[in-house]
Amino acid sequence: MLITIIGSGNVATHIAAALKNAGHRIGQVYSRDFQNASLLAYHVGAEATDLLTELRPDADIYLIAVKDIAIEYVAAQIAGFGKLIVHTSGATPLENLSKHTVNAGVFYPLQTFSKQKELDFRQVPLCIEGATEQITLQLIALAQTVSNHVYRVDTQQRKILHLSAVFACNFPNYLYHVSQQLLAAHQLNFDLLKPLIRETADKIQHASPASVQTGPAVRNDVKTMDAHMQLLTGDAFLQNLYLLMSEGIMKMEKN
Amino acid sequence: MLITIIGSGNVATHIAAALKNAGHRIGQVYSRDFQNASLLAYHVGAEATDLLTELRPDADIYLIAVKDIAIEYVAAQIAGFGKLIVHTSGATPLENLSKHTVNAGVFYPLQTFSKQKELDFRQVPLCIEGATEQITLQLIALAQTVSNHVYRVDTQQRKILHLSAVFACNFPNYLYHVSQQLLAAHQLNFDLLKPLIRETADKIQHASPASVQTGPAVRNDVKTMDAHMQLLTGDAFLQNLYLLMSEGIMKMEKN
Repeated sequence: MLITIIGSGNVATHIAAALKNAGHRIGQVYSRDFQNASLLAYHVGAEATDLLTELRPDADIYLIAVKDIAIEYVAAQIAGFGKLIVHTSGATPLENLSKHTVNAGVFYPLQTFSKQKELDFRQVPLCIEGATEQITLQLIALAQTVSNHVYRVDTQQRKILHLSAVFACNFPNYLYHVSQQLLAAHQLNFDLLKPLIRETADKIQHASPASVQTGPAVRNDVKTMDAHMQLLTGDAFLQNLYLLMSEGIMKMEKN
Repeated sequence: MLITIIGSGNVATHIAAALKNAGHRIGQVYSRDFQNASLLAYHVGAEATDLLTELRPDADIYLIAVKDIAIEYVAAQIAGFGKLIVHTSGATPLENLSKHTVNAGVFYPLQTFSKQKELDFRQVPLCIEGATEQITLQLIALAQTVSNHVYRVDTQQRKILHLSAVFACNFPNYLYHVSQQLLAAHQLNFDLLKPLIRETADKIQHASPASVQTGPAVRNDVKTMDAHMQLLTGDAFLQNLYLLMSEGIMKMEKN
């Protein structure tokens, strides 16, 4: 496949590299920032541009990995090519593309990417949706060239997935930050918690989270929870957060 | 060392196995539940009992790994032996032992244990405190026979560590549960999120959580946050949690 990558952020970078490694050809890379476009283009052997008007109509697929708010604008600019346009966003309906072209699809990688951190793309779940069954099958085939975990996920399910990912990734990462700050305030090193953080994420790979829940709240250990609230005196925000999370844990059902 | 293990739960089980593997001898295992005592005793080649009065005074160390609330009671029963008594609790002051004996210490493994899940004990951080410098050094030496990560941590620091662990482990695990429930309500498989959960915990092993925070809140993406709140309509608890976590993320400083 000849693929044009629109965007040069974390998602664009990892997908472009994965497609390239799988033997596809990246023709052009677009970014508003020419430096960023050039850097990614260099890595995947493509041509860089910072002008949408310089995109050529020769690619098989135009893969849009830009900020959600810019997806529709970009799609409208290139819809005239009559080629397949896909976006990579968890929070954006297929509709935002398909009102501009019948050749629309979604290629959503459910993972958190950082440019500086390598990961095994074959383990990244790819969530596929197409405006037609033919497009869906074409995108599934493409997705299988780069990942072992390809799912059909429609717009409504993708919204739920994206929301769930916020709970399973963005919020836990924030809690890691809170714990780091608590330790730092008492001259304790965050390294102490790292094995625990990794093990907590490992455990639920093969057991339901409810079945491995630990800590004072699930034991209904009011004395320890009180002691923790005492330690958080002066930080009303963290006290609120502690109470709310503990309330949730106390009412969870084991399953 | 000849060691007596008091308790047969997750912590007792993992510590006893690690000590045994390091070449120490486990003389007796006590549990209120004789079956549990027997099972653990069998695994570590020890004798089982469900009576504190059957504990012999011949061990070098009595390691108490029972519920926090029972630690002091147990300590009072065996203080007469005049031997070293240590507890394994993050939330319990050394004081609870040292009011009964001068031979008191803490041997706190900062990890989440499940009996059914193996882990590499050499990677478990062990937090050591002793009533005297001599005891501290003796416990550090013992700890180093089973772990590569041994720290001196006093009672006040241990309290903060324990609280931080609740934020870094218990609360994230609850959020995994929430995401699983959200997916299940829409016929989506929790497996979809597992690579993301693992990667999120992996990322902070070598980067600060603030530097790798992703999601709508850190981007100040109000439109997506509104859409998520809409999806949570009817669940006031999760809406509250979503708002509070997002508020925290929006005000975090990148560092």
